[in-house]
Amino acid sequence: MSLFLEDFSVGLRLAGGAHELDATQIKSFAREFDPQPFHLDEEAASRSMFRGLCASGWHTAALTMKLLTAVRPQIAGGIIGAGAELNWPSAARPGDLLRVECEVLEVRPSRSRPDRGMVVLRIQTVNQRDEVRQDLRAKLVVFRRGPS
Amino acid sequence: MSLFLEDFSVGLRLAGGAHELDATQIKSFAREFDPQPFHLDEEAASRSMFRGLCASGWHTAALTMKLLTAVRPQIAGGIIGAGAELNWPSAARPGDLLRVECEVLEVRPSRSRPDRGMVVLRIQTVNQRDEVRQDLRAKLVVFRRGPS
Repeated sequence: MSLFLEDFSVGLRLAGGAHELDATQIKSFAREFDPQPFHLDEEAASRSMFRGLCASGWHTAALTMKLLTAVRPQIAGGIIGAGAELNWPSAARPGDLLRVECEVLEVRPSRSRPDRGMVVLRIQTVNQRDEVRQDLRAKLVVFRRGPS
Repeated sequence: MSLFLEDFSVGLRLAGGAHELDATQIKSFAREFDPQPFHLDEEAASRSMFRGLCASGWHTAALTMKLLTAVRPQIAGGIIGAGAELNWPSAARPGDLLRVECEVLEVRPSRSRPDRGMVVLRIQTVNQRDEVRQDLRAKLVVFRRGPS
């Protein structure tokens, strides 16, 4: 079973996933995409405003996407993002066991394209202590089931 | 030389970077963070709404961060994001030579913390044909130079 536009309604909740973050992953992502001292080196990070090694916000965003792709039921046609608003109330840390909690905020059929619509999801990425590491509002393109 | 809050003014522009994206990078990022057919496999991608292999939006976001860390002059204390608004007008493709173009939209000293403020930047990620692959509005924490 997979979800079409007709299956979404405001308030619907989906959740899932588990990803254990460690220092090796944090540094490896940082070397490739965000080579700043507080993501690369414990010693330098301890002297920064973060007071310890923390993940790039874009690493948290990428891991959130990974967790979303594992949530069931899946969206028919895939998770296709048109835009997003992100906040990082706190930075992800080594030892975080991350999961996602989603809630449908809006369902909007397209006026110009009758085969699809937009679903606005609020997606919180939280750890095992329920600390919110990312608060994401994502606009997704979702297809209709089609004429019945 | 590095930039403090006092060095930012609305309208200031910064630009730079060059990253050549290829299919191997697109698939490698997708395997780790966004394993969907249109990011993993040319054949499957050609049958999707993207009509060909394209990068995950989160890959474009991560590459944008990489490009930003190379822009000079640097921000004193690093690029520390508090939040962001992202739009992906089109997906990045193999062969894209990506760069960033930034403009300062807002400079806001903090009321509660006299040592810092917020800078809102508009950051466009564009390719060699000036196609916009990502339009980002980022809120950055920027420190003051301090009492002179």
